[in-house]
Amino acid sequence: VKLLLINPNTTASMTDLVAREGRRIARPDTELVAVTGRIGARYVASRAAYAIAGHAALDAYAEHGTGADVDAVVLACFGDPALMALKEIARQPVVGMAEAACLTAAACGGKFAIVTGGERWGPMLREFVAALGMSERLAGVHTVAPTGADIARDPDRALAMLVDACRTCVETYGADSVILGGAGLAGIAPRIADKVPVPLVDGLAAAIRMAESAVAARACKTRVGSLASPPPVEVVELSPGLVRLMSSTVE
Amino acid sequence: VKLLLINPNTTASMTDLVAREGRRIARPDTELVAVTGRIGARYVASRAAYAIAGHAALDAYAEHGTGADVDAVVLACFGDPALMALKEIARQPVVGMAEAACLTAAACGGKFAIVTGGERWGPMLREFVAALGMSERLAGVHTVAPTGADIARDPDRALAMLVDACRTCVETYGADSVILGGAGLAGIAPRIADKVPVPLVDGLAAAIRMAESAVAARACKTRVGSLASPPPVEVVELSPGLVRLMSSTVE
Amino acid sequence: VKLLLINPNTTASMTDLVAREGRRIARPDTELVAVTGRIGARYVASRAAYAIAGHAALDAYAEHGTGADVDAVVLACFGDPALMALKEIARQPVVGMAEAACLTAAACGGKFAIVTGGERWGPMLREFVAALGMSERLAGVHTVAPTGADIARDPDRALAMLVDACRTCVETYGADSVILGGAGLAGIAPRIADKVPVPLVDGLAAAIRMAESAVAARACKTRVGSLASPPPVEVVELSPGLVRLMSSTVE
Amino acid sequence: VKLLLINPNTTASMTDLVAREGRRIARPDTELVAVTGRIGARYVASRAAYAIAGHAALDAYAEHGTGADVDAVVLACFGDPALMALKEIARQPVVGMAEAACLTAAACGGKFAIVTGGERWGPMLREFVAALGMSERLAGVHTVAPTGADIARDPDRALAMLVDACRTCVETYGADSVILGGAGLAGIAPRIADKVPVPLVDGLAAAIRMAESAVAARACKTRVGSLASPPPVEVVELSPGLVRLMSSTVE
Amino acid sequence: VKLLLINPNTTASMTDLVAREGRRIARPDTELVAVTGRIGARYVASRAAYAIAGHAALDAYAEHGTGADVDAVVLACFGDPALMALKEIARQPVVGMAEAACLTAAACGGKFAIVTGGERWGPMLREFVAALGMSERLAGVHTVAPTGADIARDPDRALAMLVDACRTCVETYGADSVILGGAGLAGIAPRIADKVPVPLVDGLAAAIRMAESAVAARACKTRVGSLASPPPVEVVELSPGLVRLMSSTVE
Amino acid sequence: VKLLLINPNTTASMTDLVAREGRRIARPDTELVAVTGRIGARYVASRAAYAIAGHAALDAYAEHGTGADVDAVVLACFGDPALMALKEIARQPVVGMAEAACLTAAACGGKFAIVTGGERWGPMLREFVAALGMSERLAGVHTVAPTGADIARDPDRALAMLVDACRTCVETYGADSVILGGAGLAGIAPRIADKVPVPLVDGLAAAIRMAESAVAARACKTRVGSLASPPPVEVVELSPGLVRLMSSTVE
Repeated sequence: VKLLLINPNTTASMTDLVAREGRRIARPDTELVAVTGRIGARYVASRAAYAIAGHAALDAYAEHGTGADVDAVVLACFGDPALMALKEIARQPVVGMAEAACLTAAACGGKFAIVTGGERWGPMLREFVAALGMSERLAGVHTVAPTGADIARDPDRALAMLVDACRTCVETYGADSVILGGAGLAGIAPRIADKVPVPLVDGLAAAIRMAESAVAARACKTRVGSLASPPPVEVVELSPGLVRLMSSTVE
Repeated sequence: VKLLLINPNTTASMTDLVAREGRRIARPDTELVAVTGRIGARYVASRAAYAIAGHAALDAYAEHGTGADVDAVVLACFGDPALMALKEIARQPVVGMAEAACLTAAACGGKFAIVTGGERWGPMLREFVAALGMSERLAGVHTVAPTGADIARDPDRALAMLVDACRTCVETYGADSVILGGAGLAGIAPRIADKVPVPLVDGLAAAIRMAESAVAARACKTRVGSLASPPPVEVVELSPGLVRLMSSTVE
Repeated sequence: VKLLLINPNTTASMTDLVAREGRRIARPDTELVAVTGRIGARYVASRAAYAIAGHAALDAYAEHGTGADVDAVVLACFGDPALMALKEIARQPVVGMAEAACLTAAACGGKFAIVTGGERWGPMLREFVAALGMSERLAGVHTVAPTGADIARDPDRALAMLVDACRTCVETYGADSVILGGAGLAGIAPRIADKVPVPLVDGLAAAIRMAESAVAARACKTRVGSLASPPPVEVVELSPGLVRLMSSTVE
Repeated sequence: VKLLLINPNTTASMTDLVAREGRRIARPDTELVAVTGRIGARYVASRAAYAIAGHAALDAYAEHGTGADVDAVVLACFGDPALMALKEIARQPVVGMAEAACLTAAACGGKFAIVTGGERWGPMLREFVAALGMSERLAGVHTVAPTGADIARDPDRALAMLVDACRTCVETYGADSVILGGAGLAGIAPRIADKVPVPLVDGLAAAIRMAESAVAARACKTRVGSLASPPPVEVVELSPGLVRLMSSTVE
Repeated sequence: VKLLLINPNTTASMTDLVAREGRRIARPDTELVAVTGRIGARYVASRAAYAIAGHAALDAYAEHGTGADVDAVVLACFGDPALMALKEIARQPVVGMAEAACLTAAACGGKFAIVTGGERWGPMLREFVAALGMSERLAGVHTVAPTGADIARDPDRALAMLVDACRTCVETYGADSVILGGAGLAGIAPRIADKVPVPLVDGLAAAIRMAESAVAARACKTRVGSLASPPPVEVVELSPGLVRLMSSTVE
Repeated sequence: VKLLLINPNTTASMTDLVAREGRRIARPDTELVAVTGRIGARYVASRAAYAIAGHAALDAYAEHGTGADVDAVVLACFGDPALMALKEIARQPVVGMAEAACLTAAACGGKFAIVTGGERWGPMLREFVAALGMSERLAGVHTVAPTGADIARDPDRALAMLVDACRTCVETYGADSVILGGAGLAGIAPRIADKVPVPLVDGLAAAIRMAESAVAARACKTRVGSLASPPPVEVVELSPGLVRLMSSTVE
């Protein structure tokens, strides 16, 4: 089983982090290939950067994901830029980190909260969960000031702050589980799990496991509706990969 | 990894079917133990039978699930009687077939529909999906007249009817994926997948994979809130297992 | 008019309380027969106990409610275990205490809050109100630590705490009326009404009056849909009453 | 017990119908006083007529309802113009026909539909039910072309059409109960009940029973919030009753 | 372009304020005619006064708005009494102040809050926004104790209090824009805009601009549905204008 | 007043159409500058093309919109790719065609429907309206098979089909107004208005009028929250304009 991890943040060190932590989570027979976005912000922390990251994610898929040996795709930027567009255009299952984390947390029962870095993600993630149709299950989103990129650079310093944030989610919002969102927070959940009285869900782990399950399920690609492969369209000024992917019929 | 499959329909042959089909789905190193409900209806197809099946599921867990070697529990009756009560009282992850199917189908993107046997399940499953907070993702529920038990007895006869039902979900409700619900329909999805243009989700397969993932995630049991182990309470006229489980403090 | 009051908490003294307080509320020509659940928790204060209480309620109905002289059924456990199953299987109107309280409070206009004993009831009642489709009218649920059983044993001690809880509902949640939920709180509303500036709704009183009205309305039993009497089904290990009720066709 | 029935349709013969049918429903010791709106449309069947009927209802209350002997008020125009304003300004319980019908139908379980006369009532009643916070319970509204006034003039002629409408609600919308809305349809439910397979709810009967129950409950008037008696305000060009009611402090 | 401004508060000085402030906002070639309600409360600050103001608004339209030279109508009482009835009965576009303010604030993106005078408007405006179908966009309603009428009499005194209220909306509710509601607050937004870090929306300005745009769009009157001109109906005890408008066919 | 019209479809002839039709709608003193997206699909008709169009829209703004003389921005692609990102990053008001059309249609009262070209837009626009928080006001989306680009090439041929689609919206979905969506449909509304019995809303006209109103309102840019200008971030492989806009602090 080969999974393509797309990090649309254009920071290679973050891709390395995701690949390294992903390796610990994936099954032994799962191969991970992690690629970095080619265009856009070093770290996505605004609506504008998020919109461009959608292009970057599609671009990375077009370049690295269309081969027959890629079994599934993990979109490794919490908030999942262009998730539905990737599901549409890819012939494999595509799993977003935030999507997988929300579905996994929902399986715990009750309500989940999200803790992540970067204040602007608060409203953006509430809108994401609403678009997922899961607002009724969301206890709240709690952001801390450092971005995921900041936390990735010095995770030790952020631990206490993240524990506090998780506890606020439980005590104030009544969360029954807490998602640690953000590629930059990969690997932190096990380090603080014993200090938080509810299950912690790691976005990367949730996404990799869901991708592995999707491969096992041999989930077929829909052939109708707005998530089927789109008809070819003439495009301009895109990378060769995207030109090929969008302008030739995907059979 | 050892999974306990609880079939709260009091029909051993259906348990056998679930165990057999489950065996095909589970990973090689997963052990399945399937048990049959001790009390209630042979097949759950009404609100009354459903309520009693909740007791049967708890009872089966109390008798078979409390051992240290059980890693997770699969509630193998689509509609998931007493699912939240099981999550509350079990110390392991508990996954319901309908719950897992809805979350898995949601990961396909767009809207999902449910096809199942037994007309009364229509409103009951709509209410279940609403309680799961996922009504926005539900394209519709389409029931066929034979119950899951009927279909399990003679699946070949039901195939054409189920294909028609799935196609109605796609063409009329606009579903982007279709869940085949019901323990009695286990194993049917692969047989009709090529006749339906959207992904088919098998409830049992979804539940087993989600249970395996939960074990891999070492998801901890919540220690607070309404899904934590409840305080002991004096109970009367229950099975020895339930007396033990409910009246002694779960540490 | 004869009403069957089913207390699925397996505590006879609580049934006595319900019967005694119910007697004060019912019209002179209403006869009350109160029965106690045969199986399950002495007092329902967890999801597991609630699920089993659903079986207990059906069992009590099967044993005591099928006679021609019973005109309506009151489910006297706030939270209404197996309410829809009882509506399905009974040939008479069935009224739940929480259901009746919510509908009665809604008739006051604006938003209602619920005050009850036992912390776990907070999420459980929010889910109940959501299942009733009335979340938009719910200002909040406020639980006090002692359970309804504790309060029933020494109501005088709880009065001040309950007044505080009601005031919080008004001042903090903006409630326009407050429901005192829980069989154990029957009879308390009139004792504290003058200390709370909004109408207080007593669950038991609401249920008895709604049951009397339903009898007066000669509301017919639906003959179609998921609340009609279900087709007979083979059942195992149930009480003789339930066997009779579930396995013979209800005409 | 004395109930004031306010018919804000300015047609005395419709008030007589309501009084006559109400008399059959009310308990023996209930006294009914029915009054006719003084201003506005003969029959409310548009948004403009509905808005003015709100004034008429308040005016009728001010003139006839403020006496100490009036125990509760029934607003006898399905759609309940100025219902919340009446609840605010009256010191007694106020029950609207549509409000009571929806709450009574909800107590049947499942979903209810509304059948009424006059096509414009379709959207207006959907909005009313939404304002009541009960859209999730509404299966649909089905209007027939003749208005309630037309039906009141010749009910026999309308019976077959109403039966058809009710059946459509059951078969097409999946309703578990059907409300016959409209003052003009009072008394029709018992005449067609055996031709419709689900419970029929008569708006007038529901309102009278709910008003009687509210009196029995000695429901106090809220002293805070937006439904408490409003502070006095200077008014112009209103009837003496409304001047008195609105410009003097209600203690 | 000629706009009719209807102030259903029966206070001429408030009409003058609205006309004066409106004049500053309207385009040079827009003519404003402002009329005062003939019946009801000097200032609408309760549900009862609001219901009667609906009649007053219709009455003012019937008297002043039916002429061929009136191009659009602005309902200049925040909360918009009888807005849908006016849209139904008028042959021109009708714009409510609260309606226009909500739609204009929504165009800022994110969530809006409402600041207004008079505590009872809190729940009433929440209900209004819900009826508009925009509750998801509402961050909150924050009322200050003085009514709009009080503020209109001495706006200088209220400025600091209004700034505080706006800031609470931003800091506590997370509003991305704030509406200053109430005819009495017309003209205040520009005076405090630099003290509030989000866009301020003035209800009157929003309504006048939306009315001017509607005239420019030559929006046709719907000819079908519940907002088309209603069929004529016999009415009693209304003003000559309303008799004419409601009882003759509007072509 | 100078408006920048951004057409993120990379087809200059469509930009010309938008500019030409926009010219007819705008006020005499409004200057329109229309620019074409530099990257992506010739016509946006899939989720992938839509995601990339978001980048194209931001890119066009960065190149053409940051000058002091641009007063507002119109995003001239119905469906509004990157609308919230543009609102975030621009210092002027930004108005989307679909956004403006929905708000304008909402001001008609009742429910609106959307007619547009290209079948994939059906689910995409339903999701857009949901993200706008206006699903309750949406009667339905009706797509015709030709895309907006096809219609723009030969509008005469599409007229009858569009009239049929609009009528279906009215008769089947109960719409009180209909939006003609799509840059390619600009100018068609007036040509078919007399054949449709409800108001038709032209997306481009709605957007231009709303942008003009926003300029007149001197709406300030929010200085806090997720729509304020974002902090600078290092970006790679973007156009010089975007590099400048995103990596330098916007004061």
